[in-house]
Amino acid sequence: MSTTPSVSRKSFKSAATTSPWTAADKRAEQRELKRQAVLSTAAQLFNERGFQATSLDDIAARLNVSKPTLYYYVKNKDEILIECVRSGLQTMLEGIEQTRLAGGKAIDQLITCMRIYTRIVTQDFGMCVIRISDTELPAERRAELRQLKSGIDQAFRRLIKACVKEKAIAPCDPKITAFMIAGALCWVGQWYQPGGTLTPEKIADAYIHTFMQGLLGQRT
Amino acid sequence: MSTTPSVSRKSFKSAATTSPWTAADKRAEQRELKRQAVLSTAAQLFNERGFQATSLDDIAARLNVSKPTLYYYVKNKDEILIECVRSGLQTMLEGIEQTRLAGGKAIDQLITCMRIYTRIVTQDFGMCVIRISDTELPAERRAELRQLKSGIDQAFRRLIKACVKEKAIAPCDPKITAFMIAGALCWVGQWYQPGGTLTPEKIADAYIHTFMQGLLGQRT
Repeated sequence: MSTTPSVSRKSFKSAATTSPWTAADKRAEQRELKRQAVLSTAAQLFNERGFQATSLDDIAARLNVSKPTLYYYVKNKDEILIECVRSGLQTMLEGIEQTRLAGGKAIDQLITCMRIYTRIVTQDFGMCVIRISDTELPAERRAELRQLKSGIDQAFRRLIKACVKEKAIAPCDPKITAFMIAGALCWVGQWYQPGGTLTPEKIADAYIHTFMQGLLGQRT
Repeated sequence: MSTTPSVSRKSFKSAATTSPWTAADKRAEQRELKRQAVLSTAAQLFNERGFQATSLDDIAARLNVSKPTLYYYVKNKDEILIECVRSGLQTMLEGIEQTRLAGGKAIDQLITCMRIYTRIVTQDFGMCVIRISDTELPAERRAELRQLKSGIDQAFRRLIKACVKEKAIAPCDPKITAFMIAGALCWVGQWYQPGGTLTPEKIADAYIHTFMQGLLGQRT
């Protein structure tokens, strides 16, 4: 009996590797993948039809699952919207932070951030930030999202201030200039149609050129 | 008897001028004033709280009337929103048309239109155009409003083309430049707070300056 336990433990281990059930870490990963698919699909529908006009049934139908299946991944429609908007805003903040860490001249950082902003507002979650008003959410849930938005605004103001300090751009009011740049870029999320000739890169190029040179810029 | 009718007609006429009822033309005028008050109040509430979160009861309460009174002036909440958005868009189109009729250089017309745009998106109806998504409305009711929006976009593209032709601005893609200008100005309707230090005139001045000169503009 004293020698058998190690053998049986070994057989048990072998049996586990061929189990028809997925290992816990793999399960968590699959669950997260599915949760992300629920959120992306919801964001697409919100952006196409609006938040009110999208039901959990619509989201479930597009994913070929039943409504009860959705509840395994998300709590309710409000929580889905919050997650979509938070995800869009956090991706933007991460992009801005990575740009800051990469260093370099403020003007180059500002241009990189404008590219990041344009790319994100043309993606599902970023588009949600722009197209779905936060008045759709209960007042007490808006504070966290507004704080993230304020973080993005502050980052743009800091970059504009730094650009003026470096004499890379003309003196200006950083607040109003940040609003103007962000406003123009936000609105891309309103009119952008995926798959068209105007790619996010082309849009960013044109906007950056006009913002930098001005309309009067290079007159012939 | 043959002389009395003229006398009695005269007395009847005098009585009518002191009638406690208002004359028909005056009544129509008062009704229109009240209808406008309903629409303005509704627009203010939509802009503050969102369309879904505003009820006809809220609108009635702010006007100190009962909900049934509202139905004398408007059909339902959808119709109120349509009227508010239509009014904002039409005021903008009228401003653009007046600018065109006044004539002058395309660049001056473009600048005037940018000022008009900024002023209107900071007013109740114009703010509604920006803050309330048209996905709140039944699909069949959006077409008319989208046509008005398209008219404004086309007017901006025409002006930009004319500016390039006059060599007043650098060559550019009129579509993307119109989207960029309109986008930046639209977004003012999202963040503008009435009564603040940033008046619509100051905002327009700053935006026009940056759009014309560019951020690189007048570096020191």
